[in-house]
Amino acid sequence: MAEDKRWFEKHAPEMADAYWNFYDIVEGETSVDKLPKALIALAVVITRRCEHCTEYRIKAALEAGATKKQISEVIMQTAIVSGGVELFWAKGTYDKYLG
Amino acid sequence: MAEDKRWFEKHAPEMADAYWNFYDIVEGETSVDKLPKALIALAVVITRRCEHCTEYRIKAALEAGATKKQISEVIMQTAIVSGGVELFWAKGTYDKYLG
Amino acid sequence: MAEDKRWFEKHAPEMADAYWNFYDIVEGETSVDKLPKALIALAVVITRRCEHCTEYRIKAALEAGATKKQISEVIMQTAIVSGGVELFWAKGTYDKYLG
Amino acid sequence: MAEDKRWFEKHAPEMADAYWNFYDIVEGETSVDKLPKALIALAVVITRRCEHCTEYRIKAALEAGATKKQISEVIMQTAIVSGGVELFWAKGTYDKYLG
Amino acid sequence: MAEDKRWFEKHAPEMADAYWNFYDIVEGETSVDKLPKALIALAVVITRRCEHCTEYRIKAALEAGATKKQISEVIMQTAIVSGGVELFWAKGTYDKYLG
Amino acid sequence: MAEDKRWFEKHAPEMADAYWNFYDIVEGETSVDKLPKALIALAVVITRRCEHCTEYRIKAALEAGATKKQISEVIMQTAIVSGGVELFWAKGTYDKYLG
Repeated sequence: MAEDKRWFEKHAPEMADAYWNFYDIVEGETSVDKLPKALIALAVVITRRCEHCTEYRIKAALEAGATKKQISEVIMQTAIVSGGVELFWAKGTYDKYLG
Repeated sequence: MAEDKRWFEKHAPEMADAYWNFYDIVEGETSVDKLPKALIALAVVITRRCEHCTEYRIKAALEAGATKKQISEVIMQTAIVSGGVELFWAKGTYDKYLG
Repeated sequence: MAEDKRWFEKHAPEMADAYWNFYDIVEGETSVDKLPKALIALAVVITRRCEHCTEYRIKAALEAGATKKQISEVIMQTAIVSGGVELFWAKGTYDKYLG
Repeated sequence: MAEDKRWFEKHAPEMADAYWNFYDIVEGETSVDKLPKALIALAVVITRRCEHCTEYRIKAALEAGATKKQISEVIMQTAIVSGGVELFWAKGTYDKYLG
Repeated sequence: MAEDKRWFEKHAPEMADAYWNFYDIVEGETSVDKLPKALIALAVVITRRCEHCTEYRIKAALEAGATKKQISEVIMQTAIVSGGVELFWAKGTYDKYLG
Repeated sequence: MAEDKRWFEKHAPEMADAYWNFYDIVEGETSVDKLPKALIALAVVITRRCEHCTEYRIKAALEAGATKKQISEVIMQTAIVSGGVELFWAKGTYDKYLG
């Protein structure tokens, strides 16, 4: 029913169709397995700060067979990798002044 | 040799040791397989804008057995997931005014 | 009245004045029309994850004459552009390993 | 010719098609005028740190009829709005401790 | 007691230990004084959008002797510096097209 | 001379004046000492990915009397704090599914 539609499906229906089409192809069967894809998506929504998405992606990861241990370890991995980025992204500048 | 040390290993050696210790434990053998971990790390460094790290992580993914197809698909996945976050993160506000 | 002041107006009054002065000049009459400016501000606060600001900017856009359709399409545009950035920002590295 | 293809068009062709389809619909004729859309896209790619995209979007804005003055003012607007977000996004917490 | 453990301490105990070890060394006695460190941490959690962390870091700054005035001024500083970044990060491109 | 002006000083002179006025007040003498302010600004520009700004802020920190050790430790602090944010920002959701 119309009232079940999301706001962007109501007001921007062609764009919404194109978004979902792109989404479905990426989230469908591809060369990367279902579980890794669920974990990658989780890492991205955490890094990009979307709590709704994080909830959705944790549930999806559990459904894809991930254990709580695996999910927790992925979040720890986002912590070390995301933190490490601060140390490496401006390598040239860091080396020039602090090397 | 000392001159081979990174800037943070020279000037903050205890912190550097602690960083690498954390890093090694996460990047070592854990409940998530090597290939998924390589792809997750790639997704995080892309999302967090570190070109050095992206180069390092693409190489590491290739070494972990990822194909160019898989790596390309992971980057596409960061595009749809990261983009989709814009549509979902402020769900309450979007629904209130646009629903 | 004093109690109506925002926290930064109370504790950092000179900085607050300077902030509002900068804000007023940018948000006032300039070479970009009122409606586009309202939509640009919306795109920025979404991309920078501020739900209060997103609510404020959606209301301001509606008051500036934007339709729900236009606002929805702008949010869809932030999705495709923000997502597309993942594909293009590290062009050199992507081309080197995946080209 | 094949060698003119972008890396994601080569290795993830179906996803690339879906991405471009989504992109074309959003960037095509919609309820928001061409010039505002060019400026919104510019604001997003700046906020999301893509220098290639920023160059592309400045050129596109100039082609869409934007003046240097308008483009400069849009970038100034991203500065005040993006900066202002730091002051407003955690309103509840700020008010609780600093109000 | 086990039920007091954080989720990552339960499911990823070795990583958690390594995280806290790194954290304790950085947050312990170092060459930067306690108050500046409290303010730097505040600036980072604001910029990285963590409301829980912002609350924690404001309380820690107050305990480290910061005044409401100092904390407010630090948040204002994140606004001007973070906003200013939009004007300077793509210097080459800005100068090329707008200089 | 006019040709020494920055692009935004040329094309958006009133906004530029307001920006610099805000900047000067925040960067001038305030309740937070010069050295902490230099370090806070450095942490923000790193977190917000501006290499020009990072170079400028490292030089400014050195001129404000910071040692290489202090600067390195501040960057390490951005790593642990920024990384830690991934573990804490979505506390409610993490606890619900992983607690």
